[in-house]
Amino acid sequence: MPYFDMASAAPLHAVARQALVAALDEGWADPARLYREGRRARLLLDAAREAAAEAVGCRPDELVFTPSGTRALHAAVAGAAAGRRRTGRHLVHSAVEHSAVLHAAEPYDTTSVGVDRTGLVDAGVFAAALREDTALACLQSANHEVGTVQPVAQVADACRAAGVPLLVDAAQSLAWGPVPGAWSLLAGSAHKWGGPPGVGLLVVRKGTRFAPQEPADERESGRAPGFANLPAIVAAAASLRAVRAEAAAEAARLSALVERIRTRVPQLVPGVEVVGHDRHRLPHLVTFSCLYVDGEALLTGLDRAGFSVSSGSSCTSSTLTPSHVLKAMGVLSEGNVRVSLPMGTREEDVARFLAVLPGVVGEVRGRLGAPEGAWAPAAGSASGGGTADAAAPGDAGGTEPAAGLLVDSLGKLCPIPVIDLARVIGEVPVGGLITVLSDDEAARLDIPAWCAMRQQEYVGERPAERGTAYLVRRRA
Amino acid sequence: MPYFDMASAAPLHAVARQALVAALDEGWADPARLYREGRRARLLLDAAREAAAEAVGCRPDELVFTPSGTRALHAAVAGAAAGRRRTGRHLVHSAVEHSAVLHAAEPYDTTSVGVDRTGLVDAGVFAAALREDTALACLQSANHEVGTVQPVAQVADACRAAGVPLLVDAAQSLAWGPVPGAWSLLAGSAHKWGGPPGVGLLVVRKGTRFAPQEPADERESGRAPGFANLPAIVAAAASLRAVRAEAAAEAARLSALVERIRTRVPQLVPGVEVVGHDRHRLPHLVTFSCLYVDGEALLTGLDRAGFSVSSGSSCTSSTLTPSHVLKAMGVLSEGNVRVSLPMGTREEDVARFLAVLPGVVGEVRGRLGAPEGAWAPAAGSASGGGTADAAAPGDAGGTEPAAGLLVDSLGKLCPIPVIDLARVIGEVPVGGLITVLSDDEAARLDIPAWCAMRQQEYVGERPAERGTAYLVRRRA
Repeated sequence: MPYFDMASAAPLHAVARQALVAALDEGWADPARLYREGRRARLLLDAAREAAAEAVGCRPDELVFTPSGTRALHAAVAGAAAGRRRTGRHLVHSAVEHSAVLHAAEPYDTTSVGVDRTGLVDAGVFAAALREDTALACLQSANHEVGTVQPVAQVADACRAAGVPLLVDAAQSLAWGPVPGAWSLLAGSAHKWGGPPGVGLLVVRKGTRFAPQEPADERESGRAPGFANLPAIVAAAASLRAVRAEAAAEAARLSALVERIRTRVPQLVPGVEVVGHDRHRLPHLVTFSCLYVDGEALLTGLDRAGFSVSSGSSCTSSTLTPSHVLKAMGVLSEGNVRVSLPMGTREEDVARFLAVLPGVVGEVRGRLGAPEGAWAPAAGSASGGGTADAAAPGDAGGTEPAAGLLVDSLGKLCPIPVIDLARVIGEVPVGGLITVLSDDEAARLDIPAWCAMRQQEYVGERPAERGTAYLVRRRA
Repeated sequence: MPYFDMASAAPLHAVARQALVAALDEGWADPARLYREGRRARLLLDAAREAAAEAVGCRPDELVFTPSGTRALHAAVAGAAAGRRRTGRHLVHSAVEHSAVLHAAEPYDTTSVGVDRTGLVDAGVFAAALREDTALACLQSANHEVGTVQPVAQVADACRAAGVPLLVDAAQSLAWGPVPGAWSLLAGSAHKWGGPPGVGLLVVRKGTRFAPQEPADERESGRAPGFANLPAIVAAAASLRAVRAEAAAEAARLSALVERIRTRVPQLVPGVEVVGHDRHRLPHLVTFSCLYVDGEALLTGLDRAGFSVSSGSSCTSSTLTPSHVLKAMGVLSEGNVRVSLPMGTREEDVARFLAVLPGVVGEVRGRLGAPEGAWAPAAGSASGGGTADAAAPGDAGGTEPAAGLLVDSLGKLCPIPVIDLARVIGEVPVGGLITVLSDDEAARLDIPAWCAMRQQEYVGERPAERGTAYLVRRRA
């Protein structure tokens, strides 16, 4: 049963498993104790720290182990910002950082640097956001949802020139290699590289001001309170070494498989947008969105077909909003699928995924009543009236003439508003207007994305009595 | 090789080991995901939560898993205090809490409730410390250094009557049974009950105000950010069940072994003070201090003889101060040894410990030049002059007459000041005074304790030009 969600958690690497089981016997005691069990634990901890530091490209005394990547990021943001509190309380981060960074940054005055439609940060734009009172800058090495690799080395140079430390969230990329450039802090997460859960790492390069914000604790240089999770730390370090030994070969192999998905999915499934950068990308990760499909139904269908994937669609989140990454990129969010291939993924599993996907998407589209042919590569006229009503004349405001057709999608969740729109586009003449009323936040992303994909004109949005009115002009 | 430091960390229970290894295969995925690996992980997490909650005596939705007992205590103090910030910023805790509580309490206005010489908190004194603006009270179920069991149920009643939530640090007692009484919050640590490191638990009873202070995170009810350490959580819950099944029988058996240590050590080794309560105590833990011995040398000697124990002596801590617990109790801190027996400890290992101890203590005493015979049960006259000098007359101040003999122990670490004192006590006439000058913090505990044990009179201390002058009058 192929598991294609390595970006969320990787199954335990065989080497990690061996190391963990061995360390259960050798590494359960307190490494701060002077007796033999303690000394043995200390040796294991020191060796794990050296191995991890070598893989990261730092000194062992710059690296501490934390209980998770999330906690490493939390400690990094709080500690680095406090270390420079006399400089100011301003933080710069990209709009597509992991939520652990965004939540840790909430207490500060922040500037969120936008990305282009591929999810890429512009190093110049990022540099321009640095201010006199900027205490810390944060940039991921690669995006966790779309795989876009960020220009960390360039941004690190700009930060260094401005005297601002750069924190790199390297959770998604550390399996593949060290993060280049003159960054100051770095965080990682072992269960993303085949290590066990319960281990993150936090690197604070020498010379970086850092004031830990958690209650005092002697362990891990005062940067990670609590008893060390030693067997898991030993396994995490062993696993990082092991995956790095395979990284170059696997990166080439998986990158080719991902390329195949990037190319084939839009050919096999009409109405698909592949999102993320086509060259600056992680080797194992690809994300695409499918018109007229809701993410949860798609995940369920793929799970039934034996494939475990993830989604940034609104209906799969507890907040019912699309992922902030897709929002920042301004791409289609409905029917979103993230495929991230674990090392060792077999070619035939990818082939089977490609064979299965069109049927699963088609099944969901059929069930949701998506208009037949509406997702064909060349857009034709839509059939069926659906929920469209003739608009009352004189209803429109602003500079636009009255909408020719009003589609009331209030109370309907993604992807229904887009399906409603596709159903009626054929009912207005070329040049005619359609107004879609929707109170689903995903519509703000998905209606413009639909227009771009269907070669229709997205005119704009305006507030309505309930929800928002989205204006579309028929072009073809 | 007997390991007698269960209070620090217990070796992994066989059941925990089995559960951990099984959960590595079944429980590595993200329990928040909808696909089969995620659902399987969710089932394991839910089952572990139910098992742990049953053992603690709470509802499953009141319990979350944290990365360690320390982090559970940190989160509990910060969250409970913030939940009642409108009441005030006052915290009450005992003077012998774990450092994790004391450090977490540092940002607040605190009242530290003292203990008697057995380490016991008086429930009435604790209750009297509660104020109108008390946001939180903290009391351990049992002390981690001396094993004294605290009157939690009584204190919980007093807290409830005052409308103050009580946080119980149950790290040392949870292996033995649930904590009785109407407490509001509770923290525990799996590696103290034979579970793996990397797992703590935090219980917040319904109706307790709680505002998590870490960055927002959807997992574990928003009370423990980061990816769940699932295989370890499964093992922790399994282990808690397993040790509880053995707890009653083991408690009786180990309590008898501890009783034997309590009785025999003072008979076998002269100049020993057994510390901690003789009845209100944990079944497996006993602590004693030995005159004229430094803790580190003692631990090293015992380690060489095959025994792993712990110490609260100043020389075994990085701060060179005796443990705050021994300080609060006002007992001898030099040559301190904590013995905490893991479940399954064999009687013959305890017998061998008792056989070995006198030789190890004697060896250290000999090496440090402790006066021959000075530790005999009936105090005789001391031999040898050592570092004693005749004091310059007119040197004394206050109400005491000039000290007959001045012992300059400045710059010498525990237990040397006490050894210096013992060496010269025979040189002054009965009724005569000795002044010991010392800048070692342990002397403040150990000189009065020595006087009590040797039937000499401790007159008091006063500041000196360097360090402190301790005045002792010869009685016998």
